[in-house]
Amino acid sequence: MASSNQGISLRPIGRAETPYKVQPGTPIQPGLDRIGGSRIVVFEEFREGLDDLEGFDRIWVVAWMDKAAAFRLKVVPYRDNVLRGLFATRAPSRPNPIGLSCLEIESVDRESGVIKVKGADLLDGTPILDLKPYIPQVDAFPESRSGWFSADHPVIFADGRFAEERRD
Amino acid sequence: MASSNQGISLRPIGRAETPYKVQPGTPIQPGLDRIGGSRIVVFEEFREGLDDLEGFDRIWVVAWMDKAAAFRLKVVPYRDNVLRGLFATRAPSRPNPIGLSCLEIESVDRESGVIKVKGADLLDGTPILDLKPYIPQVDAFPESRSGWFSADHPVIFADGRFAEERRD
Repeated sequence: MASSNQGISLRPIGRAETPYKVQPGTPIQPGLDRIGGSRIVVFEEFREGLDDLEGFDRIWVVAWMDKAAAFRLKVVPYRDNVLRGLFATRAPSRPNPIGLSCLEIESVDRESGVIKVKGADLLDGTPILDLKPYIPQVDAFPESRSGWFSADHPVIFADGRFAEERRD
Repeated sequence: MASSNQGISLRPIGRAETPYKVQPGTPIQPGLDRIGGSRIVVFEEFREGLDDLEGFDRIWVVAWMDKAAAFRLKVVPYRDNVLRGLFATRAPSRPNPIGLSCLEIESVDRESGVIKVKGADLLDGTPILDLKPYIPQVDAFPESRSGWFSADHPVIFADGRFAEERRD
């Protein structure tokens, strides 16, 4: 099976199924989910590409955050109370609203295309653009400085600040 | 400044400037670059979003790998010699050829939009879709199992296997 990658247009390979229907109350980062039961469902035509994934503990879920409001270049992130440059935040309202979530794999079922995951921070129905294995050698830098970000900040669930009414 | 995120169409926010003009000889992963001097150049209209990035050691560079060949659901990755499921590899030929590189920040110049980076594994001219701060609390899992991937594999530069002639 082959396809062309010409131009810049996207084609979802699957969708997220999660307990989160609206932004308020959705975990703002992976790993903060308290409900569980989330799944990535890969469309039939792409399922062959799931082979060998079960050897990995974690997966990068690259999602198209289709419910995010129009972008702003300065935002007040959930874990801060001052304006920050958008590209120094993980806010969903971006010029290209591509989400990046490192999720724990619970199971992979190649036949049904279902990947059960832990820690989902995605809205239900979010289109999935890509899946990549998490490889610590190229992805894990535990000592990396993280600027304004404070892990101790008490906010862990979204409010409506990036969920303005869409205009389509 | 605001824009709509309607539909699934992409809009580059900048481009990569690297020493790598063709896939053969390009590092296959971040951190394997031996030449240096790579930069991410952000277009003027998006530069305000670079504020506060200098507090971070590393950045996620989300790129559109426009020179990748059409995707295949089973590929022989650079660091292996058997067919693997595409989504268990980081091969560039994907249904949505979105690249994910964690690069070290050397400097950020908000005025010119230039981010000097270390470890680039991107072709020169690659469109950049997004930049996100690297945050160890949500991105670093050094103990994560990584399946077939072997860090000891001697191959660190690409050949032409994912660079078939484009048809546009």
